[in-house]
Amino acid sequence: MSKYWSTITQSIVPYVPGEQPKGKKFIKINTNENPYPPSPRVLEAIHKVEAGTLRLYPDPLCHELRKAIAQQYGLSIEQVFVGNGSDEVLAFAFMAFYNPGNPILFPDVSYTFYPVYSSLFQLEHHKVFLNEDFSLPVEAFLQGNGGIVIANPNAPTGCYLPICDIRRILDGNLDQVVLIDEAYIDFGGESAACLIPEYPNLLVVHTLSKSHSLAGLRVGFALGQKELIQGLDRIKNSFNSYTLDCIAQVAACAAIQDEEYFELNRNKVMVTRDRVSHRLLQMGFTVVPSMANFILISHAALSAQVLFHGLREKGVLVRYFDLLRIDNYLRISMGTDEDMNIFLQILSELMEQKK
Amino acid sequence: MSKYWSTITQSIVPYVPGEQPKGKKFIKINTNENPYPPSPRVLEAIHKVEAGTLRLYPDPLCHELRKAIAQQYGLSIEQVFVGNGSDEVLAFAFMAFYNPGNPILFPDVSYTFYPVYSSLFQLEHHKVFLNEDFSLPVEAFLQGNGGIVIANPNAPTGCYLPICDIRRILDGNLDQVVLIDEAYIDFGGESAACLIPEYPNLLVVHTLSKSHSLAGLRVGFALGQKELIQGLDRIKNSFNSYTLDCIAQVAACAAIQDEEYFELNRNKVMVTRDRVSHRLLQMGFTVVPSMANFILISHAALSAQVLFHGLREKGVLVRYFDLLRIDNYLRISMGTDEDMNIFLQILSELMEQKK
Repeated sequence: MSKYWSTITQSIVPYVPGEQPKGKKFIKINTNENPYPPSPRVLEAIHKVEAGTLRLYPDPLCHELRKAIAQQYGLSIEQVFVGNGSDEVLAFAFMAFYNPGNPILFPDVSYTFYPVYSSLFQLEHHKVFLNEDFSLPVEAFLQGNGGIVIANPNAPTGCYLPICDIRRILDGNLDQVVLIDEAYIDFGGESAACLIPEYPNLLVVHTLSKSHSLAGLRVGFALGQKELIQGLDRIKNSFNSYTLDCIAQVAACAAIQDEEYFELNRNKVMVTRDRVSHRLLQMGFTVVPSMANFILISHAALSAQVLFHGLREKGVLVRYFDLLRIDNYLRISMGTDEDMNIFLQILSELMEQKK
Repeated sequence: MSKYWSTITQSIVPYVPGEQPKGKKFIKINTNENPYPPSPRVLEAIHKVEAGTLRLYPDPLCHELRKAIAQQYGLSIEQVFVGNGSDEVLAFAFMAFYNPGNPILFPDVSYTFYPVYSSLFQLEHHKVFLNEDFSLPVEAFLQGNGGIVIANPNAPTGCYLPICDIRRILDGNLDQVVLIDEAYIDFGGESAACLIPEYPNLLVVHTLSKSHSLAGLRVGFALGQKELIQGLDRIKNSFNSYTLDCIAQVAACAAIQDEEYFELNRNKVMVTRDRVSHRLLQMGFTVVPSMANFILISHAALSAQVLFHGLREKGVLVRYFDLLRIDNYLRISMGTDEDMNIFLQILSELMEQKK
């Protein structure tokens, strides 16, 4: 604590990202990164950037990138906002659409950055309790509120909410912005982006970090009707005019335009997820059904914490959250098939030792 | 205006960056970019980045980059904070150190983003009137306040405040954070970074956009005692864990480590500035003495607006601010010598036509 810190700085409890290990080589299945590299077109695009471009400010409107995204979703460029990772887009959205004194709603088990944004921007929030199986109680999101934030599929559970339920939530909250955070939607879910023409209260947030293998480049985007995008623009232009550097802009464009690679990439991850889930069920694990690139698992015989440490000792890094309701679960990101086989092998050995 | 916008979104007046023209080829001396490309080592570093790196989150602590900066300034890594351009660093600093209800002070003529941050974070501010010659009245910054923000050299005037005056301001404000925005310090000024060991209330902010020719990559940093850097970290980690992508991190490192190139680059710009200033004085212009990579000029016989449009028509883009006290001035960024010769030639012709 320092006397120079503002009251906000003193009061916030910052987000803690998953470990990015240095030195020792781990099988790293702890931060939901894609195990496969991005489309080869990405490096090609990066290598084409000239020194003379680097000295100039990048396009503050990110015109080409927004055009590429708009085409992908059948939207207009005015319905697309891009930012420095979806975390930045989420931060801007919390500022742009929610007000102190009018509590926003999000699930009790969800992305742990939501309450952090809430406290940073001094918003109130109510946590809506998920059902026992981590599914989302739609009715609970139809009560009075100042806004709604739902990750779909949810993190760290992987649970997917079908479009018909999102429509019910949108219909029940026509005066508030309903933010659907679709960081993991490309692994089997259907994007709510198709509802944008109907709902002025819908903001859909995506990232290229997962399904486009670009976590290292920090590109996220939001889709919504023009008025919402203008709201995000106002906040962004009051914070940092140029949030996306010139390289991230061309690289993201290249990734989005290589649809064939994208399809292959996400399919591989889904196949791995389903295979690993099946195997874990056979081993007696509880596996929350997932539509994401990770699974949340638990075992009656061995505590998650013990497993976490056991795996770490053997060179496998997974994610453990010491949080209510999920403190006996591990979140396992999908690695390559080879990595997942090693993970399953080590996990079997740990279970064996326990007997 | 939209009913979905928060009260902040409705009330702010966003910053407007200088024009980034498309299509038509301009002599672009309007946004203080460096006319020369970055060190060749920058592209080399970028080309070394592998596809496998892009799929992983970047180092959230930016360890290597902070180490390179720390070495440059004789500081420890705990005294360095990096961000997505100095605009982001400034935004974080306003949140981290200033409180609503306790007005911060900055000059009436300065970087026009300061009042925007103020309004975004609902801080109050008082503008301190600069002297007639745009020099800074040090005494006026010794009155009660909630924090101080000074660009040195100032923008868009180019006026430089010597270290002894900064020391007086620091001594007179030991309980508030004094932020010295040194975006342009490398063009002849002395950085206040040397005062950091003595002053826990000093935060110095830099950018690689100007003197390192990296506007396109969005890298800025702050220097200060550990407690201040921790304050910035708390805000950043409540906003976006990974603000600097993996390419910007290695490219910025390369730029900072090529000291020889840096010296040559900034010297060329300074020589051009002094030559152009001299020529403009001969032409009867008022030239505010500048220690930056731009100059603020005015002429008694022709209005700045007329000159702005005349120059634009002839393919030369400069910056005009329709703001109190400087609405008859033009800000001219330093281009290559060739570009500046064309600018001077066209300016002469415009003056000639007037006669």
